[in-house]
This record gives sequence, structure tokens and C-alpha cells, in this order.
Amino acid sequence: MAKSSGKKNAFYAQSGGVTAVINASACGVIETARKHKDKIGKVYAGRNGIIGALTEDLIDTSRESKSAIAALRHTPSGAFGSCRYKLKSLEQNRREYERLIEVFEAHNIGYFFYNGGGDSADTCLKVSQLSKKLGYPIQAIHVPKTVDNDLPITDNCPGFGSVAKYIAVSTREASFDVASMAKTSTKVFILEVMGRHAGWIAAAGAMASSEDCEIPVIVLFPEVTFNRRKFMQAVKAKVKQFGYVSIVVSEGVKSRDGKFLADQGLKDAFGHAQLGGVAPVVANMIREDLKLKYHWAVADYLQRAARHIASKSDVEQAYAMGKAAVELAIKGKNSVMPTVVRTSNSPYRWKVGEANLSRVANVEKMMPKSFISKDGFGITKKCRDYLGPLMKGEDYPPYGKDGLPKYVRLKNAPVKRKLGDFKV
Amino acid sequence: MAKSSGKKNAFYAQSGGVTAVINASACGVIETARKHKDKIGKVYAGRNGIIGALTEDLIDTSRESKSAIAALRHTPSGAFGSCRYKLKSLEQNRREYERLIEVFEAHNIGYFFYNGGGDSADTCLKVSQLSKKLGYPIQAIHVPKTVDNDLPITDNCPGFGSVAKYIAVSTREASFDVASMAKTSTKVFILEVMGRHAGWIAAAGAMASSEDCEIPVIVLFPEVTFNRRKFMQAVKAKVKQFGYVSIVVSEGVKSRDGKFLADQGLKDAFGHAQLGGVAPVVANMIREDLKLKYHWAVADYLQRAARHIASKSDVEQAYAMGKAAVELAIKGKNSVMPTVVRTSNSPYRWKVGEANLSRVANVEKMMPKSFISKDGFGITKKCRDYLGPLMKGEDYPPYGKDGLPKYVRLKNAPVKRKLGDFKV
Repeated sequence: MAKSSGKKNAFYAQSGGVTAVINASACGVIETARKHKDKIGKVYAGRNGIIGALTEDLIDTSRESKSAIAALRHTPSGAFGSCRYKLKSLEQNRREYERLIEVFEAHNIGYFFYNGGGDSADTCLKVSQLSKKLGYPIQAIHVPKTVDNDLPITDNCPGFGSVAKYIAVSTREASFDVASMAKTSTKVFILEVMGRHAGWIAAAGAMASSEDCEIPVIVLFPEVTFNRRKFMQAVKAKVKQFGYVSIVVSEGVKSRDGKFLADQGLKDAFGHAQLGGVAPVVANMIREDLKLKYHWAVADYLQRAARHIASKSDVEQAYAMGKAAVELAIKGKNSVMPTVVRTSNSPYRWKVGEANLSRVANVEKMMPKSFISKDGFGITKKCRDYLGPLMKGEDYPPYGKDGLPKYVRLKNAPVKRKLGDFKV
Repeated sequence: MAKSSGKKNAFYAQSGGVTAVINASACGVIETARKHKDKIGKVYAGRNGIIGALTEDLIDTSRESKSAIAALRHTPSGAFGSCRYKLKSLEQNRREYERLIEVFEAHNIGYFFYNGGGDSADTCLKVSQLSKKLGYPIQAIHVPKTVDNDLPITDNCPGFGSVAKYIAVSTREASFDVASMAKTSTKVFILEVMGRHAGWIAAAGAMASSEDCEIPVIVLFPEVTFNRRKFMQAVKAKVKQFGYVSIVVSEGVKSRDGKFLADQGLKDAFGHAQLGGVAPVVANMIREDLKLKYHWAVADYLQRAARHIASKSDVEQAYAMGKAAVELAIKGKNSVMPTVVRTSNSPYRWKVGEANLSRVANVEKMMPKSFISKDGFGITKKCRDYLGPLMKGEDYPPYGKDGLPKYVRLKNAPVKRKLGDFKV
């Protein structure tokens, strides 16, 4: 039974890999909740994500100033900490779900805002279901976030547009560089990007080339089995035509045997296994097969943390999803996720929609076949029309006199604990 | 003997690795020359650098519109093409120097603006000396450019400030990301940066941490011999204190035996030698010695092409160097290079100076010992005071509706050839 009634507090947590704009969603949640103090009490955040809830390590966001919360909008990373911690199924680990609900009840929390990808949508749904059964009903709202862009129903996922912009801009810039050097030096540039299962981020590399600025880009998608011979033919053709080529390769590219291309069984001089990326593997193949001079880069965290070149659409949508989540909660909604609904490509228009979590949890949205060009190395017009608006507009953070962006660090003051320890 | 007298044409070429702002210097040269049409005829550019001069493949920049030349200021890479082609000594290859002067004479070129690093300063000097002997005196002016920041006399080199800003911003952003994830996931982030001989770029990584935003950064300089035990101690200490650490490693780091750390004799499953970067090498060491979860990135060309996050100081100085080169030429100067002279750190003030090429050619400016902290893993206040102003200010390129920067591509119309073929 609920200990208290009336106005409930809210709990917000960040889940999984962070992005350049997940804090913009946090900003949307907290600013909107603060506007509805008649309905929502305090917003507590989980320190390091859901682990903070399990261990009752809560952060009192009411201790943060208005300007600090506003600055979340332009600060990359997860301001409260995130974690990679997937709750097991109810059958396997009912104890953890019950603990969550116990903590929520202890702190009079009636709203659970969980900001993440597919796994956290699933957790959200289960918490809502179980809480009802246990007699302490929680309104669980999922706030979409993932650079992988693989959540269903929503047109796109906050976090992705900024990575797409970063990859497209970086590929264009590096391609200009290679083009300058190609006569006597580097002819092939290889950029490794994220995306273990879906090629959304890799596809963004192809956006470096546009009608008024043609650039030879070859994309290696995780959706397309790597064929060394066909790939080398494509590289040779581009170098012949343009003098150079840029290759954008997804970390998730697999060879015919189903193994990741990055997993080449590398050994050091002492025979120890060494882990490398896929970019150097592709580079070495080009050296062996074509003897062309190459350079390679691995963007890794730089791509998802690059708030300095965030997409304005993305920042606005990230904020809007946080805001909408609170508004849905106030309307009494439960087990839902706000979505981006695209209403027009040109001019780009979108609105906020709503999806039931039962339709979101554990569904992965892959790149449609119609988005990948016939040869498997590029994107179609349909894909361009989809990606373009997501990279639209700039939203620069403020900079200090030292030439560095002013990103905020919160106080993250703890909430006094009321329960005993819990081992995760 | 000179074929023609009176107003001479100018020749401009880009040399070596390109930068985010070398075109800003080209813009400075061309715009300033256009303002002095009474003194300077046309500005010809070398297609792909000095090779364009040797093969008489000249570009007529007068065919470019005012707006196209103005757009060079915000376009990375080398708009006319660059090359890695070092002219040998006069004794070894007098033929090439004589050819240069022959081409200059055929096109009535009296001014040679060479935009590059130490090697091109040396070429500049030799062309000037030999041209006098051959009775067709050329005024040779070197325009400084190098991301390595290793030219003497000038306070700094255009191109470096923007790389420094990119590395500092990226390190700060990735560090925020790692800090969010460190509780359950990645604790060590490794970023590989350029700089085979001098640690200037690596040093910029330490600027990610500032007084109001402390970040645990360990820098591995090429100037400091790698000591695995000491390094692991430093990593452990930072992770203990902060929960995470960012490592910025120069590609030029060497181990005690004098070999590049990147050169680990990696072999693939078939025993073929594989080339990798230094970041994965450091990452594997951390896995072996400390068993901490890591991520690594290799910035490669992204760092020197990143015009989207160029430093305003750097853009202004790159332009000023091009402008000053033309002004020096008009004043009748020869065998000189404009320099940046710093007159004050705070507020940052600088002016244009001048150096004789005999003092510039073949001199490499390394990081002073006093810039590296005692433990060898960081920078001193002196270094901070030096680097800070160079990263100061933002100078964003214009963006299109597609969310991509609008970088210019020139027509690069050829000048009619007057001489026979020449084999380089």
C-alpha cells in the first residue's frame, strides 16, 4: 500500500550509452516538471542510471539552479551518470523489480521517466506492470534515446541526428583533405563509425556527398555481407574516376562466415591476441590488394559526444521528448513513450506522437532495404530524404574565453536514504 | 635574362599536409594581390603544389569570382591541391630548380609564395638564391603553415591552433562521456593524435581540463620515452581518484628501444604483418595490465580538416600571414617569411613580424622542456598560457539547408602551357 498520497515525486534515469543530447531530454523533463509543481513534487535522478534506483542512490535535482538545468540542454554525456545494466526478466530476477518499487514507494515516487533505448523501454513496461500488481502503481514513461536510431514507431531517435551530422561533416572535411593530397600521397581515407547491428550511422557518411558537392564515398553497412572482391572493385573504380575515395565502415560489418570483420585474430610479437578496430583491417586489405596509400580514423566516443556540432533538429527533439514525457504523465498516461512524428520532409515538419511501450519494447528497427543502393555501398534518394532533416541546423554551445565549450557539471546532491543496502 | 619587365605575376603553392586554415592563407594572398593590381599581375597557383610548377600545370586564380576566393577563408584542405614532394639539394637535383625558374620566367612570374612547413621554407630560400644567379631574380616569400607547430621564430604556425582546439574540445567531450559510463562500463578513453616528432598537438589534449572543469588527462608525448610501469601507475591513480581517465597519445611515442610504440609487429591469422595505430596498442596494454574497460579513437585527418571547429585566432592569423606575404613582396622583400609575434598573453595580442628564411629553413622547434610537467604526463602553466590564446574564439563556416558546411570548390582553370614536358 502507498505510504503517502497526493502529489507524487518523479524519478528520472539515463540508460545505456550516452549521447550529445540526452541531457537536453533531462532538461526537458526537469524544466517541465518544475512548471507543474502542483502536480509533480521533486524530480529525483538515478546516480549512474537505474543502479542509482536499485541502490537507493538518488540525486535531488531540486538542488540545482535554474541556469544549471538550462545548461543541460547544451551539455553532452549523461549528467547524472548512466549505466549498462539490463534488468533480467521478471522470472529471473523479480527481486530487482520489487526493489525498484520499494525505493519508489519509500521516496513517494509516482512517475518513472526512463531515458534510453530498447532495453530500457522493456524495463519501463515491466516496472509499470509489476507496480500495479504490488499495489503501488507507477506511471512509467519511456523517453527515447539512442545513437543507433533503432527504436520502432518513432520516426527517429534523439541522439542519432547529431551523430549523423558529425559523421557527415567529418567525412566531408576529411574528403576535402584527401582530395588535396591524392596526387602524390593518400588516396583512400577510411572512417570507422558506430552501429553494431544497424547501419544508420554509416549511412550518414554518404550524406557528405550532395548534389552541389559530389564526393566519392563507399559505405560498408552491417546489413550487407562484406565481399572483398566487390569492395576492391568499387574502391578502384572511385579512385580511377575521382583520384581518391572515402570509405565509411560500420564497426558491425561482418564477413561471409558471420564473424565481425574487426575480429581478425591479430597477434602481437609475443603471440598475444590483440583487439583492433575494423578501420585498420580494411586499410590493411587495401594495402595488400591495391597498394594504395591510405589513412584511417576511428571516431568512437568522439562521434556521440560531439555536442559542439550537434544538429539543431536533434536538440529540439531531445528536449521535446523530455517535455512530452512529463506532459503525458500529467495526463495520466502510463507505459507509453513520446515519439517523433514526421509530417513533412520539405519543409521539414514534425510533431510529438505517442506509442504504447508494448509495441516498442524488444523491437529493433533496421535500415529498410530500400534505403541501401543496389550495389550495397551507398544510400538511395529515399534514405537521403529521411536523413537530411535530422541533421538540419546548428545549435552551438556557449564557449568560454579559453576557447572551450562551457559544459555544466551538476552538484548531484544525494537524497537521504531510507532503506537498507541492496546488492546489485 | 628576363623576357618581360614591369608588372610581374605571382605564383602561389600549397605544400605538405593540408590544414583547416591553409586556404585562409591562400585567401589572404589572393585578395591582397587583387588589391594591388598596379604592382602584381595575375596570381597563378600550382596544381597539387610545387609539382604544378615543375610540370607547368598552373591554375589561373583570376578566373575565380570574388565570392569564391572569399569562401576559401572558411574552407579546409588545399583548394589547389598540395603534395608531399621535397626538392632535393641543389647539388643533387639542380635540374628541378632550374625548371622552376624556367616556368616562372615563361609566365612572367616575379613572386613566389610558398605555403608550407620547414621543407618548403628551404625550397623557397634556394629558389630565391638560384634565380638571382641565373639572372631571373624571384622574390620568394614563405607563408608559414603546419599543424605540427614546429617552425622557428614565429610564435606559432597557422593550422596548429585549430587542431589544438579540435583535440581539446574532443577530449573534453569524450571525457564527459566516459565519466557518465565509468560506474559500470568504460573507465579509460584513449585518443591518438598527430605529431610524429613534437608533442604540441598532444599537449592540446591536456587543455580539455581547466580550472573550472577538472578532467583527468594523461598525455603521452613523443618527447618522453614510454615507460609502461610508470604509465600504468598514473592510469591507476587517476582511475582511483576520478573513476575514469582520458589518455591523449601522440602517434610519435617511442619505447626505450627507440621504436615507435605503434610498431608492435602485429600479425594477422595468416602471419601477415598488419599496421595499426598507437591507440589500440595502448588499449591492449591497459587490458593486459589493469583489466580496465577502455575505448579508443584515432582522430587522424579529422583533426586537421575540422574547419567546423576552427579557432578564430588561427583563421585570423592564417589570413594575416597570406596578406603580409604579399605586402612584404610589394615592399621588395625577398627570402623572408611573415611571422606571428605575440605581444601579450592576457589579453591576447599579436602582430605580424618577419623572419629571414636562412633562419627558418631546416630548423625544427620542439616543445620546450619547461612545457612538460615533471611526471612527463601533462603540461605546465607556462604551456597552458602559451596554448590558450591559440584556441581562442570560434569561426564557424556557413551551413546549407542540408545541415552541412558550405565549403567552396574552385574552378581551377588551367593556364595555357608554353614549355615542353618535364618529368618529375
